[in-house]
Amino acid sequence: VLVTHNETATGVRSDVAAIRRAMDSCNHPAMLYVDCVSSLASMDFRMDEWGVDLAVSGSQKGFMLATGMAIIGVSRKALAACETATCPRCFFDFRDMAGANAKGGFPYTPPLQILYGLRESLKMLFEEGLDNVFARHYRIAEGVRRAVRAWGLRLAAESPEIYSDTVSTIFVPDGFDSDVLTNHAFDAYGVSFGVGLGPMAGKAFRIGHLGSMTDVMALSGLSAIEMAMKDLDYPIELGSGVAAAQAYYRSTTGLALKQAA
Amino acid sequence: VLVTHNETATGVRSDVAAIRRAMDSCNHPAMLYVDCVSSLASMDFRMDEWGVDLAVSGSQKGFMLATGMAIIGVSRKALAACETATCPRCFFDFRDMAGANAKGGFPYTPPLQILYGLRESLKMLFEEGLDNVFARHYRIAEGVRRAVRAWGLRLAAESPEIYSDTVSTIFVPDGFDSDVLTNHAFDAYGVSFGVGLGPMAGKAFRIGHLGSMTDVMALSGLSAIEMAMKDLDYPIELGSGVAAAQAYYRSTTGLALKQAA
Amino acid sequence: VLVTHNETATGVRSDVAAIRRAMDSCNHPAMLYVDCVSSLASMDFRMDEWGVDLAVSGSQKGFMLATGMAIIGVSRKALAACETATCPRCFFDFRDMAGANAKGGFPYTPPLQILYGLRESLKMLFEEGLDNVFARHYRIAEGVRRAVRAWGLRLAAESPEIYSDTVSTIFVPDGFDSDVLTNHAFDAYGVSFGVGLGPMAGKAFRIGHLGSMTDVMALSGLSAIEMAMKDLDYPIELGSGVAAAQAYYRSTTGLALKQAA
Amino acid sequence: VLVTHNETATGVRSDVAAIRRAMDSCNHPAMLYVDCVSSLASMDFRMDEWGVDLAVSGSQKGFMLATGMAIIGVSRKALAACETATCPRCFFDFRDMAGANAKGGFPYTPPLQILYGLRESLKMLFEEGLDNVFARHYRIAEGVRRAVRAWGLRLAAESPEIYSDTVSTIFVPDGFDSDVLTNHAFDAYGVSFGVGLGPMAGKAFRIGHLGSMTDVMALSGLSAIEMAMKDLDYPIELGSGVAAAQAYYRSTTGLALKQAA
Repeated sequence: VLVTHNETATGVRSDVAAIRRAMDSCNHPAMLYVDCVSSLASMDFRMDEWGVDLAVSGSQKGFMLATGMAIIGVSRKALAACETATCPRCFFDFRDMAGANAKGGFPYTPPLQILYGLRESLKMLFEEGLDNVFARHYRIAEGVRRAVRAWGLRLAAESPEIYSDTVSTIFVPDGFDSDVLTNHAFDAYGVSFGVGLGPMAGKAFRIGHLGSMTDVMALSGLSAIEMAMKDLDYPIELGSGVAAAQAYYRSTTGLALKQAA
Repeated sequence: VLVTHNETATGVRSDVAAIRRAMDSCNHPAMLYVDCVSSLASMDFRMDEWGVDLAVSGSQKGFMLATGMAIIGVSRKALAACETATCPRCFFDFRDMAGANAKGGFPYTPPLQILYGLRESLKMLFEEGLDNVFARHYRIAEGVRRAVRAWGLRLAAESPEIYSDTVSTIFVPDGFDSDVLTNHAFDAYGVSFGVGLGPMAGKAFRIGHLGSMTDVMALSGLSAIEMAMKDLDYPIELGSGVAAAQAYYRSTTGLALKQAA
Repeated sequence: VLVTHNETATGVRSDVAAIRRAMDSCNHPAMLYVDCVSSLASMDFRMDEWGVDLAVSGSQKGFMLATGMAIIGVSRKALAACETATCPRCFFDFRDMAGANAKGGFPYTPPLQILYGLRESLKMLFEEGLDNVFARHYRIAEGVRRAVRAWGLRLAAESPEIYSDTVSTIFVPDGFDSDVLTNHAFDAYGVSFGVGLGPMAGKAFRIGHLGSMTDVMALSGLSAIEMAMKDLDYPIELGSGVAAAQAYYRSTTGLALKQAA
Repeated sequence: VLVTHNETATGVRSDVAAIRRAMDSCNHPAMLYVDCVSSLASMDFRMDEWGVDLAVSGSQKGFMLATGMAIIGVSRKALAACETATCPRCFFDFRDMAGANAKGGFPYTPPLQILYGLRESLKMLFEEGLDNVFARHYRIAEGVRRAVRAWGLRLAAESPEIYSDTVSTIFVPDGFDSDVLTNHAFDAYGVSFGVGLGPMAGKAFRIGHLGSMTDVMALSGLSAIEMAMKDLDYPIELGSGVAAAQAYYRSTTGLALKQAA
């Protein structure tokens, strides 16, 4: 069973623990594989507690590094299955890696610059504290969602329990083409938003909000897309989404309240 | 006569050419020295046309580099005067520099990293075109000024002909302390605004808007200071300044209009 | 038919053109695939002239970049075969890449930092001129080979026409363990030499000499391994290999001769 | 009294403590100022123990940083004298700096990038241990001196107690022009050696050996200058200086001996 923890196209979070419970409840022997590329180190993910057998992530999302390295977690059960599995392994085999690692090496040229970077990004994440990192992503994302509501637009994720905290997918109103919007935002304001993918092509755009990011950085993106929407005659009011996000960010910065007191 | 082209404390631009005209009209023999640290490469400055004898700037403003290098322009008249001048020269003498330069060297260890950087920043400035660089700074600054007006606040610079395009100094309303505001903006939102200097300490804050900068980056600063002002009960409306700047930026991006057509 | 152009373990260069001629002479329909990871952009390689159908290289060798990107050349014939081939393609398919490229995109997150770097390294290579790049690698490698001869040691590559210009594999004398040597060179002098691979483990070490490199950089490596060999009682004379390489480098720097004249 | 701790032109170290003792023995009230630009953090320097009142260094030598920041040590006595001194202070005044520092600021734009760098270089120096840093510089320098002796050349510093461990100034034989040598080394081998300064122009060249440096790096410089000297018909033997330095480096790496045992 392969589950995507955070679906990048739709901004929908899956309940991985529930899937494991369902598998267990019918005593299904399948392994649970999770794609957590766009969630790991930004949203809570619990490999052992949720019974995940294989988790795949990358260097370029929550770890705030350049692309170039896959990051994989594997359960003892999955490692053991590796010995008897018959699926073709043309590109990667845990045994090659484990064998070379045991001697202090790699089976091929390792991405040293990213390994050094990973040491630094882990240090940053642990200094902030994982709970704080997750809370920060939730807070930034919730501000974006408040802006979407203020614009009168609709998220692809239909209810709060499946909201992604790393990417929001937003439907444009009927009659508008989201590809025109994202192209225009880039051409006129130099800001790159995600396009709608697959069945949502032309119907939705995406705002990514993960990694080394602050509330003020989110506000700059909201400001830009507001201008682009207004340029294209979307029925929104300039500053409305920004103000909604600002109100939320103000109310949730403990420091702001304390200092203002 | 020493003139500051762009006064960093007040956000006021001086009319250097007019000062030269006044000096010429009374046949005054004084040299005209100009501090253009915070204007050169961001606002129009004309050494020869304005009859400037000595212009002093630095690497860390319009040239978008690290601090560490003064950049000096000197007229032939000033260079010649160097031979007979009697002022003490404990730190720098044009003759030492000219002598060493003539042999391909420097009279002391040169900041090589900044010299290489300068080559790159000049390339960037000339690729954009100086007129476009100046127009960009004006446009960004004017958006900030529209925001200030929307908040009901007042600039230190009292009329458009003396507005600086690289820094805006903004009075806070009576009864508020601008140092509390800038500290709070930094503590709560991680954004650093300039404090009021000298007689304006506690009475004004400053927004710098020069260098490698876009309209959207200005909007992020406006968003941040709006939140900070609101936290401190300033009588402003969230999103109001942002919306005023957005409206101006939209109306002045040729691309925006063209694409939207 | 899969050929390694430059064999990293042995420091042996294959004659790719001769292999193609052999294939053609018996009218064999096989494609010719070439691994040119450690030769491309350091040693002469001629895709079209030698009738290569698929060439695979990487960013981290002759292109002087970080690891993280494969660089692939493909003939029209191979591209066409792609349509009817039945081999499993779990990791990469030319058609995915070509389809996404045609729209200005990638089928997955591209390693942008390496793409920007590649633009710069290609600029460096073309500024130097490929013929000069190849001649530089030959000259540096030949100096290393002269040092090996001066030490009385033997290369794995047995004759000049198969010498690699990017890596030299050197047998240690009988009774010595090359792994002890490479470990000692690293521990005592901080210089990392390649270990003997496969059947040459313990019997040979390797000196890599490719990329952004000069004759003087090669001499520093030769100096280091000389000290390490002497420390371990190899029957060599300190400075002997360095002197042999110096003599060759002196005689082949046109500039040296010209200036000295 | 102004003393240069390490004289960059000659490679001579002064005995600062002895100068203080001489001053004290005649009860002279003068302050003791020391230029330790090219010694601090590479050679032992004891501000308090030697009774130094003002020590001046820079970021670009032993601190291994870019140019752009002076580093100054000042005794309480000198600080106090600052209050009554009448010398002109057009560029720097301790009181401006102390006043601004007390409020957490600087009297002018600080070189932030170098301040961050300094934190890192101090960390590196303290991790290695100052005694080890000094011992490393002595060892590298002594290897260079052994090479000079093997070439049959003469140091400007005439006896061991005044040898500098950060730069060696070496006389060329009569009838040779050291400027021709340094130019040729740069043109033919891309290695930059210091020229003879002042009365030693044309008569001596200099090898700098300070900062983040190893024995093997010193050997690469020795290899290069040997080739350049031979190209110009100096009466030296290729590899002779390198071998002398190698022999010394081998005998002084505790690790080498231990491993070889």
